[in-house]
Amino acid sequence: MFTALKAFKPTSESIPPPNNALKLKLPTSNLPVHYHPLNPLDFLLRAALIYPNKLAIAHPDVNSPAFYTYSVWAQRVLNLAYALLKAGLRTGDRIAVIAPNVPMMADALQAAPAARVIATAINTRLTHQEVAYILEHSGSKLILVDSEYAHLIKGTNIPFVISNDTGKSDDPYEQFLSEGRRFGAEKGWLGLEMEADENAPAFLCYTSGTTGRVSGVLTTLRGTYLAAIANAYEGQMNRGSTYLWILPMFHAAGWTFPWANTFAFTTQITMRSVDYPLIWKHFLNSGITHYCGAPTVQIGIVNDPSARCPPQVIKAYIAGAAPTAHLIGSLEKIGITPIHVYGLTETYGPFTRSYPQDSWSSISLEERTKLMARQGHSFATASETRVVYRPQDTEGLSGELIDVPKDGKTMGEIVTRGNIVMKEYFNDQEATKKAFRGGYFGSGDLAVMYPDGSVAIMDRSKDIIISGGKNASSLAIEQELASHPHVLEVSVIAREHEKWGERPMAFVTLHPQHASKWKGRHEDFAKDLKVHARKRLPGFACPEWVEVVTELPKTSTGKILKTELRKVVAKL
Amino acid sequence: MFTALKAFKPTSESIPPPNNALKLKLPTSNLPVHYHPLNPLDFLLRAALIYPNKLAIAHPDVNSPAFYTYSVWAQRVLNLAYALLKAGLRTGDRIAVIAPNVPMMADALQAAPAARVIATAINTRLTHQEVAYILEHSGSKLILVDSEYAHLIKGTNIPFVISNDTGKSDDPYEQFLSEGRRFGAEKGWLGLEMEADENAPAFLCYTSGTTGRVSGVLTTLRGTYLAAIANAYEGQMNRGSTYLWILPMFHAAGWTFPWANTFAFTTQITMRSVDYPLIWKHFLNSGITHYCGAPTVQIGIVNDPSARCPPQVIKAYIAGAAPTAHLIGSLEKIGITPIHVYGLTETYGPFTRSYPQDSWSSISLEERTKLMARQGHSFATASETRVVYRPQDTEGLSGELIDVPKDGKTMGEIVTRGNIVMKEYFNDQEATKKAFRGGYFGSGDLAVMYPDGSVAIMDRSKDIIISGGKNASSLAIEQELASHPHVLEVSVIAREHEKWGERPMAFVTLHPQHASKWKGRHEDFAKDLKVHARKRLPGFACPEWVEVVTELPKTSTGKILKTELRKVVAKL
Repeated sequence: MFTALKAFKPTSESIPPPNNALKLKLPTSNLPVHYHPLNPLDFLLRAALIYPNKLAIAHPDVNSPAFYTYSVWAQRVLNLAYALLKAGLRTGDRIAVIAPNVPMMADALQAAPAARVIATAINTRLTHQEVAYILEHSGSKLILVDSEYAHLIKGTNIPFVISNDTGKSDDPYEQFLSEGRRFGAEKGWLGLEMEADENAPAFLCYTSGTTGRVSGVLTTLRGTYLAAIANAYEGQMNRGSTYLWILPMFHAAGWTFPWANTFAFTTQITMRSVDYPLIWKHFLNSGITHYCGAPTVQIGIVNDPSARCPPQVIKAYIAGAAPTAHLIGSLEKIGITPIHVYGLTETYGPFTRSYPQDSWSSISLEERTKLMARQGHSFATASETRVVYRPQDTEGLSGELIDVPKDGKTMGEIVTRGNIVMKEYFNDQEATKKAFRGGYFGSGDLAVMYPDGSVAIMDRSKDIIISGGKNASSLAIEQELASHPHVLEVSVIAREHEKWGERPMAFVTLHPQHASKWKGRHEDFAKDLKVHARKRLPGFACPEWVEVVTELPKTSTGKILKTELRKVVAKL
Repeated sequence: MFTALKAFKPTSESIPPPNNALKLKLPTSNLPVHYHPLNPLDFLLRAALIYPNKLAIAHPDVNSPAFYTYSVWAQRVLNLAYALLKAGLRTGDRIAVIAPNVPMMADALQAAPAARVIATAINTRLTHQEVAYILEHSGSKLILVDSEYAHLIKGTNIPFVISNDTGKSDDPYEQFLSEGRRFGAEKGWLGLEMEADENAPAFLCYTSGTTGRVSGVLTTLRGTYLAAIANAYEGQMNRGSTYLWILPMFHAAGWTFPWANTFAFTTQITMRSVDYPLIWKHFLNSGITHYCGAPTVQIGIVNDPSARCPPQVIKAYIAGAAPTAHLIGSLEKIGITPIHVYGLTETYGPFTRSYPQDSWSSISLEERTKLMARQGHSFATASETRVVYRPQDTEGLSGELIDVPKDGKTMGEIVTRGNIVMKEYFNDQEATKKAFRGGYFGSGDLAVMYPDGSVAIMDRSKDIIISGGKNASSLAIEQELASHPHVLEVSVIAREHEKWGERPMAFVTLHPQHASKWKGRHEDFAKDLKVHARKRLPGFACPEWVEVVTELPKTSTGKILKTELRKVVAKL
């Protein structure tokens, strides 16, 4: 499958010793015989035991491709764990990782729980200043950085290790691993004690946020374990699966897919960037069966010129924003099965899914994709999803939560609790208290609940448009505008209006195949889109203004930045 | 699929009210927002929420067939929970259930954790005296009994409810459920508080045992939850699956498949008895995709005259004793994919599996089925499987465990620990201590470990044959003898021998298709089998004696009773 695979030789320190025990030392505190603390690292150790020679990580699209079997990968993770201990890190200390989807990132997310340190994977698209803030806030004591992003930590006082992403023994990262191997003195996995507390902090994920506020979401070992199993199960991932890393691993620890993959014994393919022709090369030639991505990425995939039906079934986990019915239909047309899930960094990524129903086979594609675009119901290992309002927003912990009627109309906030909710905002008791008031985590997403108990997001609370005293959901408007065949992406925000208070304004990018048609005629397009809207939306929800733009402002993780659009509107 | 389905009407008390909240009340003790106690009942509530109208339980092969959707089934479980509370049961009390695979049994295993009582499902094949012992030992305060088995509790002082297995409103069991509904006064699921401690006792499973000793294995909510997920995952059970209840639910709580099925949203078909023509009727007409069974049952299935390739893929979980390579081959020939798992009542049923390897595609069926017959490696939610010996059998808790070399030869005992190990032997601290000495649960099964870390059972410790000072595994001998095409079942035990101390003696039943050939010529068959053995086994392991019998003595769960064969041998 990969031509470079045969030629690749891992460093000699990556080769495990014979009679390698693939288990951590039991805690010195005596655990009951019937109790084992849940730890997502166990999945990797088990994969290395049962399928040692199976390809675990393939990193083919670089000058120096690298390929690791489960056996070799586990040894590299072990080497990294020892290297972290050698560097002086202690239980609960933080390390930062700044890298795209490369083997070092995959290693670090497994090695951190092995060394009992907390990994914080930092978004490579942030500025030097933003990175400095996160390094400071997390108190990171060591940085693993990919050479392409070394400029982001220029001037730092924190020790760092650079990776040239070569996998070769002269690479500084490889030297760091080799030092770890030597420091471990072949004590192996049994030289590392497992964490006795499954609720111990596991990963620290900074939300890039659409609001500008950066928070450090602290997860637990237990939550990561249970979320990973649910993610693997929802897509029916198994030993025959090949997962393509399109979603950045730095995004909410890759939605726990680093551990969903080891749980399911898959092969993971890593790519340094979101490159659509390359994605299609893998879809068509590398047997990809699963990937994750936000709608903006999925739009890029379906609209790429290489797009055509792959020979195998591909399941796409879609989350990060609500996909339009149009997008879901487009994916299915080229043979990609969408699994629409919903979540936030605070919920380890996905925790709900729009569960397919038998009745969907007898309704139109349009109707079905609208149902599929709902956020649906909780995962098996998540707890309940509720839609509530707070009669008195007391800011206190005892604030009552009242469920909205299951009418598909009344809006409230999505809240949840349980094993797939973060432990806390790191070093921010106030923000944690506020997020957890009423005993549930408040998502900030406004939704309705249907009679079948499924939920559908209408908007972020701040994105609602109050038009003539009525609540217009910017998301619902976007869903309808996106069904216009010439629209590539659309974002709708509130704009002040003398008579109605607020009215929707739409920012639109045109589909490349149709853009030429409207060249110099954007006002005509605006009229066309308004006609399209009036057929589908109540008057108060129809866009009063339509602006065609070449690009929409986005966060580093691909979410559309309405804050930026609001700035534009404020100047109008 | 089921002709009686359309005509069936559940009792009016089985119909849930509108706006039914499918969740338990949160514990009054404040749980952290990020923590939800694992509880296998949650899977049923979730199924009833997401797939209310999906067929959950079909019980078609009785005079009065019954069919319950997830929505209705959940209501019946709720009614039963309230009925138990009305009967005066309190948290931690025990109830007994004596029934074959019928809806009442399925209800009880879900309702017990809802009412926070401990269900003990009693083997229907036990004697009145044995049942009396279990009722006494468990301290059961209420009995749910199927009318066919009412004689087993004749004369009891314990209150009981009889089911005529009709699902009709004049059935005493249905009346009990209806009383529960009234007692609940429509407080619904929110009227029941969830158990805050996931390590609380869940089920009490009495082992029938091959040694005559009866022990009460106490499991936990957490263990049941995690074992059920693993079982569902190993067979890739999902919403499209239909599970046939061949394995009795009273056997180790159905190996946690009652919850594996609700986790995976399957349809379950219940049958009152193991009836091979009926099993084949369902295999061929009811879309069965999964079932569990001990090797003796699987032998009955493959040898039934109705056996032919079903139109869909059927996955068979095999456990309870080691299957012969011959059996695995026979299943595959008729299109049944065997999933060979291993466990004990003390491990919630299965906790290891023989994991398929890519290399198996290039070896002979015989070689492959031998590998598949190994017990393999631990499930994802189980902890490590070790093979150990105890240098000084101190009976103390600190007894050291030393791993045998991974040579595929040196025998030791299989031990394990972790989330898929029972909490304790109920009311038997001494037995618990003994079983847990060294910090691991000792299975009593003698095995070897191969270089790949997989384990293969050689024998129960008491079944080993010491022949000329060498250890002969009765299981390994049985495996080879079973490859003789005329052998249906075989059991090998030690018999005293003047010169060698012990020598193997084989008890054999002949395959019905070949029995006539050897009629009156059992000595000739014995010679033929010995020749077959000498080609495959070292001299000390060849059977010195072969006895053809019409039937082998078995426990009520289908395990061959070597204790009975030993009594026969002792008289020779």
